[in-house]
Amino acid sequence: MPHLSLSELAGRIGAELRGEGARRVSGVASLASAAPEHVAFYANTRYLSELQRCAAGAVIVSEEDASRVPVGAARLVAAQPYVAFAKASALFHRELEVARGVQPGAWVDASAEVHPTAAVLAGAYVGPGARVGARTTLHSGARVLHFAQVGQDCILWPGAVVRERCLVGDRVILQPNCVVGSDGFGFAFDLEGEGHGPMHRKVPQAGIARVEDDVEVGACTCIDRATLGETIIGRGTKIDNLVQVAHNVRVGSLSLLVAQCGISGSTELGQGVVLAGQVGVIGHLKLGDGARVGAQSGVARDLDGGETVSGSPAIPHRDWLRLSAALPRLPELIRQVRKLSQRVEELERERK
Amino acid sequence: MPHLSLSELAGRIGAELRGEGARRVSGVASLASAAPEHVAFYANTRYLSELQRCAAGAVIVSEEDASRVPVGAARLVAAQPYVAFAKASALFHRELEVARGVQPGAWVDASAEVHPTAAVLAGAYVGPGARVGARTTLHSGARVLHFAQVGQDCILWPGAVVRERCLVGDRVILQPNCVVGSDGFGFAFDLEGEGHGPMHRKVPQAGIARVEDDVEVGACTCIDRATLGETIIGRGTKIDNLVQVAHNVRVGSLSLLVAQCGISGSTELGQGVVLAGQVGVIGHLKLGDGARVGAQSGVARDLDGGETVSGSPAIPHRDWLRLSAALPRLPELIRQVRKLSQRVEELERERK
Amino acid sequence: MPHLSLSELAGRIGAELRGEGARRVSGVASLASAAPEHVAFYANTRYLSELQRCAAGAVIVSEEDASRVPVGAARLVAAQPYVAFAKASALFHRELEVARGVQPGAWVDASAEVHPTAAVLAGAYVGPGARVGARTTLHSGARVLHFAQVGQDCILWPGAVVRERCLVGDRVILQPNCVVGSDGFGFAFDLEGEGHGPMHRKVPQAGIARVEDDVEVGACTCIDRATLGETIIGRGTKIDNLVQVAHNVRVGSLSLLVAQCGISGSTELGQGVVLAGQVGVIGHLKLGDGARVGAQSGVARDLDGGETVSGSPAIPHRDWLRLSAALPRLPELIRQVRKLSQRVEELERERK
Repeated sequence: MPHLSLSELAGRIGAELRGEGARRVSGVASLASAAPEHVAFYANTRYLSELQRCAAGAVIVSEEDASRVPVGAARLVAAQPYVAFAKASALFHRELEVARGVQPGAWVDASAEVHPTAAVLAGAYVGPGARVGARTTLHSGARVLHFAQVGQDCILWPGAVVRERCLVGDRVILQPNCVVGSDGFGFAFDLEGEGHGPMHRKVPQAGIARVEDDVEVGACTCIDRATLGETIIGRGTKIDNLVQVAHNVRVGSLSLLVAQCGISGSTELGQGVVLAGQVGVIGHLKLGDGARVGAQSGVARDLDGGETVSGSPAIPHRDWLRLSAALPRLPELIRQVRKLSQRVEELERERK
Repeated sequence: MPHLSLSELAGRIGAELRGEGARRVSGVASLASAAPEHVAFYANTRYLSELQRCAAGAVIVSEEDASRVPVGAARLVAAQPYVAFAKASALFHRELEVARGVQPGAWVDASAEVHPTAAVLAGAYVGPGARVGARTTLHSGARVLHFAQVGQDCILWPGAVVRERCLVGDRVILQPNCVVGSDGFGFAFDLEGEGHGPMHRKVPQAGIARVEDDVEVGACTCIDRATLGETIIGRGTKIDNLVQVAHNVRVGSLSLLVAQCGISGSTELGQGVVLAGQVGVIGHLKLGDGARVGAQSGVARDLDGGETVSGSPAIPHRDWLRLSAALPRLPELIRQVRKLSQRVEELERERK
Repeated sequence: MPHLSLSELAGRIGAELRGEGARRVSGVASLASAAPEHVAFYANTRYLSELQRCAAGAVIVSEEDASRVPVGAARLVAAQPYVAFAKASALFHRELEVARGVQPGAWVDASAEVHPTAAVLAGAYVGPGARVGARTTLHSGARVLHFAQVGQDCILWPGAVVRERCLVGDRVILQPNCVVGSDGFGFAFDLEGEGHGPMHRKVPQAGIARVEDDVEVGACTCIDRATLGETIIGRGTKIDNLVQVAHNVRVGSLSLLVAQCGISGSTELGQGVVLAGQVGVIGHLKLGDGARVGAQSGVARDLDGGETVSGSPAIPHRDWLRLSAALPRLPELIRQVRKLSQRVEELERERK
């Protein structure tokens, strides 16, 4: 882990230094645990008291928050403080080092092509005709099936599965036990069946899943292959854990799918779409570029670009905020209306 | 991949051909990507414009939609168009071929019984006393633990786990990283514990999970073993990805459990029950044959056969539709009632 | 499986025997399937008819329910009946026995330390510098990565992953395909990127996940490592299947996280917190000791100790019960208010 002077660090993360440039730091740490050799990061007022007691050598902040940093610490003022923090953390971060090449205990089919700089660890599997690119790491239990392709500089953590013929781009990270290319949920209810009564007849899932460059797929997330053609995760999109992406879905670039959300079949998401945690989107919809969906919402109609919705079924977020505030008043409202009705009856009776 | 004449295809998928019977096709394709050598499928008006521009040699449709197919394409008119499409797709589909037998790099315990026609690929595992039936495929990383049994013609994709003593029928498909027979969530809160204060005391999950014939289990779906006896997934039921089936649950035959839904312990589902995506069902309930639950709903009471419910807590679907339409009007309603109350007050004041 | 006399059994499970002490039983069974050699358990009135027809030799019950046990069966009356049942079941339960030591087909790095009494089965993996404690079992496909530590008496089922440097205590059970230490979902949106337009810049997830003693982690559950420092699952906490625990989360001891719930980043749960199924909790919150959250709820604010909430967004449970009962009446309420408004109009018109 390198030691850097604050002036050098400021230059490399694109921040303006206010403080002693010669001071050296050796890593990033949280506000609560940082020591003088650490750089910390502040952005959320929830952590103001931690900031005030912080012992870090320097704190990365926005211009607005700069004055809140305690006197003892240098300020690293950045236009995009979280980006600056990400860069600082990456500078000090030592990636897990693994032995390169096909290691003993790995299984690579004779017809597979694995780049000599790739690492295939014990218990990893590369099937017939599959290809693995330069500098890519397959941890123990990662599996790339028949004729699938994984690009360069990827990391496949244990249990990550890329099923047959699927395509994974460059710099893709597959967290443990995620699945690329499982069969979509496609069944045709057949009243006649095959002579043993009705059945759900399987529709072959003959397509593939394509994961473009710079995508990250979370642990236990499932991306189904298409019925025909391709399920696509666009360039630079990041997917959290336990997310469901059904067959024929297309997700545009730079989108964010937060944990436990699910997208039903054939729905298309534009660029920069954000689905918060536990969101559900029904099938055959189009969500425009930059559409945003609040946590636990259920989307049942197309969304315009930039639209922000919440609730189940989802409505414009602003309306949902008013609705959420109003909802707990419903029982009281029912009582009020009952009383009001009585008063009106009274007035009606009197008038006669 | 075989080439078939349209007249032969029509016969094999149970459709009526309207068009040139001698024309030959070699596969299925989506409306948007089909070429003259392809058969496409149309059923959803969302895709009407794709249909109109479609270059397919033939389109599978219902009688009602037959007239919408463009002039250049033959019509394959079917009573169950999606079933006919499933059959057509299956005719042209080439299943992934794998080497038969226990392959190098597979691990089969000496006391296990694996049928000679089964395929156990490198990195697959069959534990002591376990049995694997004829023509079943265990992909790399599929695991059948101690004394578990898997029937004939099954496919266990990478990472699929069948825990000890569990039973899997014939023609079952286990998608990657699904789990059959994990321990149920059974703990007894013990105020006394074992001398170190209170504890959640584990209730042994001594039962098994039984997956009947023709079931499909989605990727990362979890089917817990029973506390005592059996958790059962009935014949022909299809389960999507990331579904939770708790201990002692019984799911009847031909049911559909869509992605990310969850069924709590000891609940029983009848035949042909449909749980849409992200549905939750609490424990110890009975859902009658053909009950249907809308997406994201929460079921907290028994359902009659054929009942259709939505919402959380779930109410009859028709009521839920009205409720959903009414909900966004609540904030305005509160204002109306306030004004109405003022007007009534005014009237009351005047009358005095 | 041992045979025990009822008097011996009563002593070992802390119950008071009412019945023939010399009668011998050999196992536990459900009310419906119990034979005279079995002990059954009753607590839920849903199963009263099963109790009445029960053929068990003895039934574990509370004092209040003791009179409901049919005449033929002995009563084992306990202050904590479910605890007594858990103890009885454990007495008769035979844990799966596996061969000890590093088995053929297992992969243990030369620099790893595996206790000689541990069992590492074929297809399990222990990476460089990792440590595995006494009597711990790693089933086929369990993986303990570089420099991770797993304590004594643990069971890691197939596909369970403990990523690099993470810490797992003693007596921990990791169900199949769960993940400890996946990367948190940390990205800084960088408008400038690296010369190819905007990007989500990965924030290194440099921390670890720590799973304390006596924790159980459900199948396909994901516990992300911290961005910095530790994600912590406190002693004795039990986590069900398909649960998401995001980076930097801290869960106190003896909490229960039911299936498919999710906790967003940096949120802290106290001791004995209960999240029911499919609950979502947003980030940076504090949930006090003993807080309880009803199924499918969404928690968007801090909770006091002992607070019980439901709904999305969550409100006090009592209010939510009233709200849930009131909700279906909203469409009718809107009609009522419309009519009332007309009546008031009428009155206003008349008064002129």
